Amino acid sequence: MGLIVQKFGGTSVANAERIRNVARIITETYQAGNDVVAVLSAQGDTTDDLLEKAAEINPRASKREMDMLLSTGEQVSISLCAMAIEALGFPVISLTGWQVGMKTNRNYGDARITRIDKERLAAELGQRKIVLVAGFQGINRFDDVTTLGRGGSDTSAVALAAVLHADLCQIYTDVDGVYTADPRLVSDAKKLDEITYDEMLELATLGAQVLHNRSVEMAKKYKVNLEVLSSFSGNPGTKVKEVVKTMEKSHISGVAKDKNIARLALVGLSNQPGVAFQVFSLLAREKINVDIILQSIGREDTKDISFTVARSDLERAREILERHAPALGFDRIEVNDHCAKVSIVGAGMINSPGVAATMFEALYDAGININMISTSEIKVSVLVEEKDADYAVQVIHNQFFQEFERRR
Amino acid sequence: MGLIVQKFGGTSVANAERIRNVARIITETYQAGNDVVAVLSAQGDTTDDLLEKAAEINPRASKREMDMLLSTGEQVSISLCAMAIEALGFPVISLTGWQVGMKTNRNYGDARITRIDKERLAAELGQRKIVLVAGFQGINRFDDVTTLGRGGSDTSAVALAAVLHADLCQIYTDVDGVYTADPRLVSDAKKLDEITYDEMLELATLGAQVLHNRSVEMAKKYKVNLEVLSSFSGNPGTKVKEVVKTMEKSHISGVAKDKNIARLALVGLSNQPGVAFQVFSLLAREKINVDIILQSIGREDTKDISFTVARSDLERAREILERHAPALGFDRIEVNDHCAKVSIVGAGMINSPGVAATMFEALYDAGININMISTSEIKVSVLVEEKDADYAVQVIHNQFFQEFERRR
Repeated sequence: MGLIVQKFGGTSVANAERIRNVARIITETYQAGNDVVAVLSAQGDTTDDLLEKAAEINPRASKREMDMLLSTGEQVSISLCAMAIEALGFPVISLTGWQVGMKTNRNYGDARITRIDKERLAAELGQRKIVLVAGFQGINRFDDVTTLGRGGSDTSAVALAAVLHADLCQIYTDVDGVYTADPRLVSDAKKLDEITYDEMLELATLGAQVLHNRSVEMAKKYKVNLEVLSSFSGNPGTKVKEVVKTMEKSHISGVAKDKNIARLALVGLSNQPGVAFQVFSLLAREKINVDIILQSIGREDTKDISFTVARSDLERAREILERHAPALGFDRIEVNDHCAKVSIVGAGMINSPGVAATMFEALYDAGININMISTSEIKVSVLVEEKDADYAVQVIHNQFFQEFERRR
Repeated sequence: MGLIVQKFGGTSVANAERIRNVARIITETYQAGNDVVAVLSAQGDTTDDLLEKAAEINPRASKREMDMLLSTGEQVSISLCAMAIEALGFPVISLTGWQVGMKTNRNYGDARITRIDKERLAAELGQRKIVLVAGFQGINRFDDVTTLGRGGSDTSAVALAAVLHADLCQIYTDVDGVYTADPRLVSDAKKLDEITYDEMLELATLGAQVLHNRSVEMAKKYKVNLEVLSSFSGNPGTKVKEVVKTMEKSHISGVAKDKNIARLALVGLSNQPGVAFQVFSLLAREKINVDIILQSIGREDTKDISFTVARSDLERAREILERHAPALGFDRIEVNDHCAKVSIVGAGMINSPGVAATMFEALYDAGININMISTSEIKVSVLVEEKDADYAVQVIHNQFFQEFERRR
């Protein structure tokens, strides 16, 4: 008994039957004596359909109007799900982003939550109503609708769980939880019962599609107990928390890949202090995130800088750099948009110096070339050619997890 | 130069091409030096699609959630149209019902506008922006979304025109204006250049689909200059105002029919004072509108009361009356849901005693039986069998308008 925030993604509410299934999960949680706040995404392809409609009319539409358009998708989901819960005979109310007091900054299309005015929520929960909240959306101080960008509904759910001091935040999706690798790719991938925020954060950042890193960061910051589970199977999911039982079996918790990667290289930069700073502050000003950075001394007084960005940012990044070519003073830009990042993540890694070497060995044995390397306390990432990425995940997973199997 | 409110219905914004057409009309009005507030309906079949989705999940869904669902349709229209106007290079902003301060009572599904907080509107117009407003929707004092019921977008437009003291309120639709009869039914129906509020009101009430009576009532009350015109043809429309040039040509301005009619008859009511009051106050309490009422003395101490209601209210009305049968004391209820109302409307009628007789003559000559008659200062309505309704409109129109042609 407590307060549980549940989040259901687009596939979980894709049609009437699935909405009824979600209504069943919510009402069973409520019947067990819990207060329930459920955050819903737009149905299945709704967002894509709306994007298509917009593109047909104006491919360069303002983000303000785009948010106005896209936010309807979640509103449809919550009202339909409320109707399904009404049909089951439970008290329920649906609330949009503005109704639930989800205040954001004015950054349309990728807004940050600034605060949640929880009066309305508290009042509805006080009346023992199940509250359905439109995910992915908020309202800025101009009373305009904003959307939260990728993984927005996860973020809505975790933010609500944080502000309501919920006992648990359950992220329902179409997979059973967090796996040691993508189960569609690696047949013997294993579901993890528990994972730390930091590990989840690395996995999320590295392209594991289960949870977006913003929501995990927020969960870590506000110590929200997360659980990732399937709305279809009824199986127990993966718990994400501060500390988990030591995984004696393996030093790593998962292998992930991210194909939304492109590499840029500035060749022949003048070897003066501040050049790197200039490059990356230019990109930061345009809100382009840079991931792996590699700086190499070139010949004579020049050096090369390579770095990766999201593939969707590639053209913008190239354009900005070319525009500032005279000031930066480089010879040329080289671009590779056929690369992918493959990573291993594990909190146990820091105490096991051999982990990176094991990974490199697996890739070497498989004849896969490594372009760049990046490491943190709990992960090792390598940049490989896109065509090698799936195979790389398999061989790395085999190296770590079958090794364990053999040992056991 | 002034302030013009324009309203575009569902067919006018049904697809990308039509939205671009609407954007063209709006921006041309703006370029002529006017401030423009445009009210849009949901695209084409959107509302029906949403109703179908809801029915699949819960045919008895609450009206509160239904309004939450349906209001998304207009939000999609305004954002898409704003994008189309952006593409033409004009300053524009879309506003939902709650953003535009459209305050209503709490009567979900059929809410009445209580006031409009025009601060936001004034601010946007002050910046010379074209303002697009989601029609059909408002917000009640609980901050919940409401919808305005049938003809809601017309009502939104007229209310905005009233509160902004607009110079003109243009209702764009798929016909060129108000005709002397339905042009699909009567081939020589004529478009009226002008018509009075009262005539328009009767025509609207009587089933002419061009404008809903609520919007006309409001236009009359606040002296809003209305114009009904086509978003497709570019032709001048019909002006609706307080006084129009006397129509010397004919005493009537139009013939209309309404098939959404059912007749109930309470047979053998006890002939005591207050019985009629009881019947109609019961129905009023359940918000069932009664139209034509006919009371006849029955045999001995009983009488019969027949009256018409909207066909969609028939079952509810019957159920209520049967439930109260013991108190009301009648023998039986007779029902006819195969009837239709055909009406002539004209401000000149009051000074021309022969008008009703001419109408009855036309029906007699055509062999059409009249079940009930109702008259007001500017209209005569008759109840006929539904199968006769279209033919009745034709013969009445011929009688009045061809007679004029002959005279001319």
